[in-house]
Amino acid sequence: MVTLSKSRIEALSDGVVAIAITLLVLELKVPEVMSHHSDKEMLTALLELRWEFVTYVVTFLIAGAFWYLHHLTFHFIKNVDGPLVWINLMFLMFIALLPFSAGLMEHLYVHPVSQFFYFGNQLAIALLLNLHWQYAKWRKMTVEGQATDADRLSFRVALSAAVFAACFVTAIFFPAESWIPLPAFLLVGWVLEKMRR
Amino acid sequence: MVTLSKSRIEALSDGVVAIAITLLVLELKVPEVMSHHSDKEMLTALLELRWEFVTYVVTFLIAGAFWYLHHLTFHFIKNVDGPLVWINLMFLMFIALLPFSAGLMEHLYVHPVSQFFYFGNQLAIALLLNLHWQYAKWRKMTVEGQATDADRLSFRVALSAAVFAACFVTAIFFPAESWIPLPAFLLVGWVLEKMRR
Amino acid sequence: MVTLSKSRIEALSDGVVAIAITLLVLELKVPEVMSHHSDKEMLTALLELRWEFVTYVVTFLIAGAFWYLHHLTFHFIKNVDGPLVWINLMFLMFIALLPFSAGLMEHLYVHPVSQFFYFGNQLAIALLLNLHWQYAKWRKMTVEGQATDADRLSFRVALSAAVFAACFVTAIFFPAESWIPLPAFLLVGWVLEKMRR
Amino acid sequence: MVTLSKSRIEALSDGVVAIAITLLVLELKVPEVMSHHSDKEMLTALLELRWEFVTYVVTFLIAGAFWYLHHLTFHFIKNVDGPLVWINLMFLMFIALLPFSAGLMEHLYVHPVSQFFYFGNQLAIALLLNLHWQYAKWRKMTVEGQATDADRLSFRVALSAAVFAACFVTAIFFPAESWIPLPAFLLVGWVLEKMRR
Repeated sequence: MVTLSKSRIEALSDGVVAIAITLLVLELKVPEVMSHHSDKEMLTALLELRWEFVTYVVTFLIAGAFWYLHHLTFHFIKNVDGPLVWINLMFLMFIALLPFSAGLMEHLYVHPVSQFFYFGNQLAIALLLNLHWQYAKWRKMTVEGQATDADRLSFRVALSAAVFAACFVTAIFFPAESWIPLPAFLLVGWVLEKMRR
Repeated sequence: MVTLSKSRIEALSDGVVAIAITLLVLELKVPEVMSHHSDKEMLTALLELRWEFVTYVVTFLIAGAFWYLHHLTFHFIKNVDGPLVWINLMFLMFIALLPFSAGLMEHLYVHPVSQFFYFGNQLAIALLLNLHWQYAKWRKMTVEGQATDADRLSFRVALSAAVFAACFVTAIFFPAESWIPLPAFLLVGWVLEKMRR
Repeated sequence: MVTLSKSRIEALSDGVVAIAITLLVLELKVPEVMSHHSDKEMLTALLELRWEFVTYVVTFLIAGAFWYLHHLTFHFIKNVDGPLVWINLMFLMFIALLPFSAGLMEHLYVHPVSQFFYFGNQLAIALLLNLHWQYAKWRKMTVEGQATDADRLSFRVALSAAVFAACFVTAIFFPAESWIPLPAFLLVGWVLEKMRR
Repeated sequence: MVTLSKSRIEALSDGVVAIAITLLVLELKVPEVMSHHSDKEMLTALLELRWEFVTYVVTFLIAGAFWYLHHLTFHFIKNVDGPLVWINLMFLMFIALLPFSAGLMEHLYVHPVSQFFYFGNQLAIALLLNLHWQYAKWRKMTVEGQATDADRLSFRVALSAAVFAACFVTAIFFPAESWIPLPAFLLVGWVLEKMRR
């Protein structure tokens, strides 16, 4: 059928990402303390929210990273067809699920089940991002002549899936350390990129 | 009066669709379980949300399909006039109602009344999409020279109304099977398109 | 200082309008009925929401009309300066307040105070829209050569303020009939436009 | 890696700002009064929300000012690189936190801890805006030949950080007067700009 200009799918993606990351803040509930409470009680109430804040920051930055990778892919993609639109809608469906996964993580961060759900959500996003990028390359929808940059992007997109697969597997055996693969893999990826140049 | 450039109504539509589909996640409530619960209790709590997840996925994809069809129509539409803006605002009004209809469906999915409401909402969206497309064709606001593609789009837009009319009627007699026309009609539409080519 | 391109303020406006009208749906609460309730009880629960639905539809269409007028003004405006940005931010501040005003109207629609608030909100939007348009004309930021269309727009923008001023005043004496000026003024405006041509 | 066109980061920023300022309205709860209450009781219930309204208006206008400054910087910025994207994502992360900070301020406006949090949030936004602007100038990503305008923008961006640093410090010693530096600094900044010309 007709080829849709890529600007429309970009606009929908920007919208869904912007809304999903801004809705994360709704999981942060203003503590129910009275105004006559002491400063110390007030600080304690805020400190009880510390894991909610950590989850907010981490989820916001992960979603920002996915948005960045998604947009780098569209730097190389010339136009879109039906299947690519549907892959993107699935991608956005898992992005839009992030406020729920983050809410689960915030309230039950030590629980293996909420960790599976959270890292499973991130892994689904990463896998759909790979599918989106590989499909566009396979159907020759990408621009020519920037092979090095496109290869580096393929590496980074694949790395994002490896990171969350590792987090997911770690959560099975060591739920309390399931976040460790995230910085570790990013460091390894950074070193590998430096070596390759 | 003045003709409004189509980019503005496209931007508003992208915004409303993006927000409506992302607000669907607010109907998914994080289960109120304590962190000392066993893995099994936690899984049970999540499994009780299974119909909410199914409704989330189905509604997200239906809304995505309407967005796709809406944007394909604008591929052919050159400019917009007052009546077309108002048809589009009505279309967006029913898109924005989807989080309510989905919430009704999630909590009361076996109930004929919530099924009428849900499929009635989808049917209203589909009928307004047909009105939008037929009005634009009637007022000669569409580009020339791509008659085959425009015809195929007319068929798909009409099919979307037929699907939800069938779901609506089925809900009267067999509420538990009201979703069956959805995949059935899509399959029939796909076969008809293949035969026509 | 620098002149900001108008596309940026248009994008922010489209975003705020799209979000405000989509948040209206959050005021519609899914009724707390059990799935074993009869069809009749379910229908009764939905019918109790009838004023919420009316308010949703009316507020959505009013906000859509303001968005349409706002965008018609930008059809004539070439560029924006600092004061115009601030007038627009004030305009958007009252647009973003609509979900609160609509919520007040829905729950307390017979109450003079909620009617003052609701129509006062709409009047503030209309007055800021007039200020925005008259300021742009006064500072010669509008395009030349379409004087007839610009005059008609001035008339419509002024009419929107007259409508809600009339609703506001009516609410003081006859709270139950405060909505009547809305269709009456639109009809008078339509007749006047026809006569002028 | 690839340079991202600035239009994409602008679209995400417009989206996040639009959503964050529109979500502020969710902190304004419709008072739970019955329709048979007297006009006086209804007015009293609304007047109890006066600090919520003040916080809504002030936070909306501050966020609007940050959006305006952010967009003025992009008037001078030609293209973006990876670090600039990440600075912008951090900037947006604190913009998206505003509904929480405003909620804290609304419910506990006399409390030093909520004032630290609120002004700390605004200060973080202002500092990241300075980092964004200085980084872009340092990496020569800005257009040439408008040095006077760019200098005036540098002054204004720096002033925004000074304002909220002053509010933050004042909140330590005089929590009830912590808002005073806001209009005072804006007045001083305005006088300094007039004198410099």
